[in-house]
Amino acid sequence: MLPPVWPRTIFSGIQPTGIPHLGNYLGALSNWVKIQKDAQPEDTLLFSIVGWHALTLPQRPKLLAQSRRDALAVLLAVGLDPQKSIIFHQDHNPLHTELAWILSCMTPTGKLRRMTTWKTRLAESRNANDESEVDESLLNAGLLTYPVLQAADILVYRATEVPVGEDQRQHLELCRDLAESFNNTYKGRQPMFPIPTSLITPAKRILSLKDPSSKMSKSAANPDSRILLTDTPDEISRKVRAAVTDSIATGITYDPVERPGTSNLLTILAACADEDITLVAERFSGKSHGDLKREVTEAVNGLFERPRAEFERLKQDPGHLDIVARNGASKARTLSAQTMHQLRWRIGLRD
Amino acid sequence: MLPPVWPRTIFSGIQPTGIPHLGNYLGALSNWVKIQKDAQPEDTLLFSIVGWHALTLPQRPKLLAQSRRDALAVLLAVGLDPQKSIIFHQDHNPLHTELAWILSCMTPTGKLRRMTTWKTRLAESRNANDESEVDESLLNAGLLTYPVLQAADILVYRATEVPVGEDQRQHLELCRDLAESFNNTYKGRQPMFPIPTSLITPAKRILSLKDPSSKMSKSAANPDSRILLTDTPDEISRKVRAAVTDSIATGITYDPVERPGTSNLLTILAACADEDITLVAERFSGKSHGDLKREVTEAVNGLFERPRAEFERLKQDPGHLDIVARNGASKARTLSAQTMHQLRWRIGLRD
Repeated sequence: MLPPVWPRTIFSGIQPTGIPHLGNYLGALSNWVKIQKDAQPEDTLLFSIVGWHALTLPQRPKLLAQSRRDALAVLLAVGLDPQKSIIFHQDHNPLHTELAWILSCMTPTGKLRRMTTWKTRLAESRNANDESEVDESLLNAGLLTYPVLQAADILVYRATEVPVGEDQRQHLELCRDLAESFNNTYKGRQPMFPIPTSLITPAKRILSLKDPSSKMSKSAANPDSRILLTDTPDEISRKVRAAVTDSIATGITYDPVERPGTSNLLTILAACADEDITLVAERFSGKSHGDLKREVTEAVNGLFERPRAEFERLKQDPGHLDIVARNGASKARTLSAQTMHQLRWRIGLRD
Repeated sequence: MLPPVWPRTIFSGIQPTGIPHLGNYLGALSNWVKIQKDAQPEDTLLFSIVGWHALTLPQRPKLLAQSRRDALAVLLAVGLDPQKSIIFHQDHNPLHTELAWILSCMTPTGKLRRMTTWKTRLAESRNANDESEVDESLLNAGLLTYPVLQAADILVYRATEVPVGEDQRQHLELCRDLAESFNNTYKGRQPMFPIPTSLITPAKRILSLKDPSSKMSKSAANPDSRILLTDTPDEISRKVRAAVTDSIATGITYDPVERPGTSNLLTILAACADEDITLVAERFSGKSHGDLKREVTEAVNGLFERPRAEFERLKQDPGHLDIVARNGASKARTLSAQTMHQLRWRIGLRD
């Protein structure tokens, strides 16, 4: 592979929708920390709390404000370092929305209507029981166009790499299309945007502790289906003990199809210990579900002990969080102002 | 009628799409000057060159940049005064796009698809000869959502009155709906937004000099169909002389249905002289088309003489234009920052 032409800039965002759970942690957050650890000094890393995206669904203002503050504390608690990464609130930088508008004038509506997220919403609304919700036409425009705002989040910093999960691949594809389309429409000495690539990371798909046919989720009705970063050791222990497994009594095996609950616990254990899952499964071949659950409890406890304490500590220090947010936003704005200055010139909105 | 509860704030925008013609002048610009003249000292007047709206249609960057600069010179040339009105480029204030995003999360897509401007575009694209254009799905998202940006243009300054033409009535209705919907969803000690009303002004519909069945338009193929603010006396004289009238030889009468060309000239004359059209028609009852055209030429010349000279003078002074633009943007940003500070707090994006 050729060396990257652009300096490496990595962007990722997280929605402020409550305390993250084990699935969020192993799926995204721990990955961000790893990216920070592996980065070169000349790399630019941006991690953003994307408040504007949260608005595409109804939010209670007080709860949103709380989640937004908590999200910043979480990012620091898990190990993101404001000295190494630009950590900021998306809604502190209006240039995201400026670029989103400009890009929306280059985005065919048909492309947005083909996004699976939109189609899912559409399907949901069509199966709605409440008659007031059965109509696509009642879905808000933000839901339709938010992949454009996502593209702007990335491109406004001329990011070169984006850590994305499977469900965000289509959105990154749109972002790449928009970058190319902009570069082709508005040519200059250099192309305006690098074409961002996805930063593939070993995806750890953590399942619900209560229904291992679905992912661990913030919105599932049963709170015991997920372990939160802020859960106490007792809560963790209780939730793991009550996790759904199976009644196969011939020892522990890794078999995601026939034994999803058991396999999920093995996945969690392997991820916490950063061990190979087959080795973990082997180690438990002669043991019981009880043995497995005890070790999972211990591992999750070990994993969350420091971040949990750090989160509680940071929550007591809102002044510090404020300073981190301000500094992050200031750096983000400076970076994006350079992009937008050139971009405005290129499209004819120049002074 | 009750006195207005809010301090009067009037917002209006003009697209930077070339030198205005007589129709723009009599339909909008002269009206803005009148609003400025009639305003009370405590009123806030905002006149904006809306560059972001221009992007919904393909633009050549160099031409757009030129039109954008010209538009500012035109506003000053016709008599808008930076001491009395806030004159600024929309694209100097990203808070418009921030509010547009937030409002888009409250705007059903169905409502946008019912806008006549969208339906017109749709009809145009379906009748297109080029197969690549027959599909609604190729129309860009900006075209669908620009009424939301328009609403944000108005609401970000908590405007109470908006001078609108007939074709913009539906958009103002959407703006009013969004303001009400926001006020109802996010309650506070005071409603967030006043519900802006339309500032009704005697609409002067100036027709094409070449095809009096349609409005005078910037985009009509024949440049002789319109008189530009920058046309020389000779050009004005030539265009008026060549204006399509009719061959009815029994003198001049005002009859928009049977004699649209002749009536259009009477309309222009009455508007230039700020006279009642029936009186003007009476005065010409015994005269010829030649007499009428001579007087129209003179009147338009008289009308455009000062603005034209002023425009040419201002074009030679880009430094001054720059300062006016900067000062206007700074005032606009300050005003809108107050709105957005409260608004963010109300929706939960608070620090």
